[in-house]
Amino acid sequence: MASTETVTPKPAGRTILASTIAKPFVEEVTGGLTKLDFKPKLVGFLANDDPAAKMYANWTGKTCESLGFHYELIDVNKNELENELIKANNDDAVNGIMVYFPVFGDSQDQYLQQLISPEKDVEGLNFLYYHNLYHNVRFLDAPTNEQKSILPCTPLAMVKILEYLGVYNKILHYGNRLYGKKILVVNRSEIVGRPLAALLANDGATVYSVDIHNVQQFTRGDDLSAQRHKVIDLDQNEYSIEKIAPLCDVIITGVPSDNYKFPTEHVKYGTVVINFSSSKNFNDDIKLKAGLYVPSIGKVTISMLLRNLLRLIENKQIRLAKEKK
Amino acid sequence: MASTETVTPKPAGRTILASTIAKPFVEEVTGGLTKLDFKPKLVGFLANDDPAAKMYANWTGKTCESLGFHYELIDVNKNELENELIKANNDDAVNGIMVYFPVFGDSQDQYLQQLISPEKDVEGLNFLYYHNLYHNVRFLDAPTNEQKSILPCTPLAMVKILEYLGVYNKILHYGNRLYGKKILVVNRSEIVGRPLAALLANDGATVYSVDIHNVQQFTRGDDLSAQRHKVIDLDQNEYSIEKIAPLCDVIITGVPSDNYKFPTEHVKYGTVVINFSSSKNFNDDIKLKAGLYVPSIGKVTISMLLRNLLRLIENKQIRLAKEKK
Repeated sequence: MASTETVTPKPAGRTILASTIAKPFVEEVTGGLTKLDFKPKLVGFLANDDPAAKMYANWTGKTCESLGFHYELIDVNKNELENELIKANNDDAVNGIMVYFPVFGDSQDQYLQQLISPEKDVEGLNFLYYHNLYHNVRFLDAPTNEQKSILPCTPLAMVKILEYLGVYNKILHYGNRLYGKKILVVNRSEIVGRPLAALLANDGATVYSVDIHNVQQFTRGDDLSAQRHKVIDLDQNEYSIEKIAPLCDVIITGVPSDNYKFPTEHVKYGTVVINFSSSKNFNDDIKLKAGLYVPSIGKVTISMLLRNLLRLIENKQIRLAKEKK
Repeated sequence: MASTETVTPKPAGRTILASTIAKPFVEEVTGGLTKLDFKPKLVGFLANDDPAAKMYANWTGKTCESLGFHYELIDVNKNELENELIKANNDDAVNGIMVYFPVFGDSQDQYLQQLISPEKDVEGLNFLYYHNLYHNVRFLDAPTNEQKSILPCTPLAMVKILEYLGVYNKILHYGNRLYGKKILVVNRSEIVGRPLAALLANDGATVYSVDIHNVQQFTRGDDLSAQRHKVIDLDQNEYSIEKIAPLCDVIITGVPSDNYKFPTEHVKYGTVVINFSSSKNFNDDIKLKAGLYVPSIGKVTISMLLRNLLRLIENKQIRLAKEKK
């Protein structure tokens, strides 16, 4: 009997870890810390019983402390969260506030989200910040333009990742650096998917945004003639995942389910593939297809969170200096 | 054969129509109009294909026009709504803006809701107004206190209805006029049910708030010692609708489904019963149980909408006068 040899296929592409991408931002943040004469304090509120949320909260806590920030995790009954948030808003010792959503799991969560003072909103979840994102407004204090607006952590992390991976082309004009790129985003939540699609389209990409209901296209037009993206609904038969995925340069997923797996067979060879869900949205065979594969992004996101925290402190210092004058 | 006589039971209570309750507010609004040297303009945006929404939009339009307001209904593609809202925000000829929600039917609607300028938000849906409601803040410009805050239309309409029906007891101190009243509210949406429960509890009632998930109690404590309401989750077996309903002085429903009917058998005789859903949440036999029955409230709500519109105009005039100084 002839011996059979199994050939394990070798990926042509690379898997890139979030920790690698996060490195310069972690350095930026720790460098920023040395310029302060105090240790910034971030407070996280946990008001659900989900053990996964608790683990995530502990992980963010450890990361913050290890980088030199003071972190306090407050366990609170969900019906007490509003009062606790107001206390933290008014507490001068607190520099940043985050909530581990979902709390109620419905639109009461949006009320709570808006309740976090924009001056302490490290995740950038306030309406003001989303509005500025959608409208490409970079500063909070036009026309002086000294205080920079905050971007929501995860969409911001994604932009930094795409820059690192070379998807943003620096030879193109600033603001058009995704021109020609087709990007599929599977998730259209208000927290990440929709703002992300808008951000990428504002930078020149053609974005296909998929959620369980339909497929939309975000674009500034074929020639980027529009100043800001437009959204159109696409025909779901003509623009199914099977048909769009093979056309895309980048595939980004954020499906919060362990059961969901993006169909590898529809990914063209060499695609940039990024998963921002805490669930694994791709099977391991994606490595045989993807040019660059980023299996998770949490470490980049948390560096953006701390970057936002420093920015909020800087904005406050600018405001206080102005008031003194 | 002896003839049988059918005795139709006669209700001991009364059915009160919204038009009756709305009358003084309609007069207040038309009186307020005569003091203006222009005809205020309300713009309504319709961005869904629901024929019921279209009918409702046409009805609000007709009511506005008949009372002396200028009303414009704008049909718009949902993906264009954001741009159109921004235009209306910036258009000096527009005094009030409303959107016929749902548009996307998910949290993108909350983004759009926040996008309506608070200065033109006749429905009182901005975070600022809900926040003021929850925290019993009555003015926008403390400590001067000249510009009154806006209350969301439907919860405000409900307070006016309960005042009309004598549920608010004027002999009690202002702010405590629902003391001793037990009120059941079936609906805990962010738009109506939850703010309504908070408003009523802030005025001294013990409110049982029911949604499909659970039952909560909103109260300032048995002795109203708290300045503002607290919320606790109740045991659902001990506090089922069957058990709570017979204890309540007032039952308010807002279930947006033609199939839902509140179980008449659990309503005690003489209860005040109000339905704010556009669906009929009670069978006709409720009239045999209810002390006062208000089958729908739309006409009161729209008078509150126009009252809010006049208040927004007044606030603007106060602001402009201040800026001139």
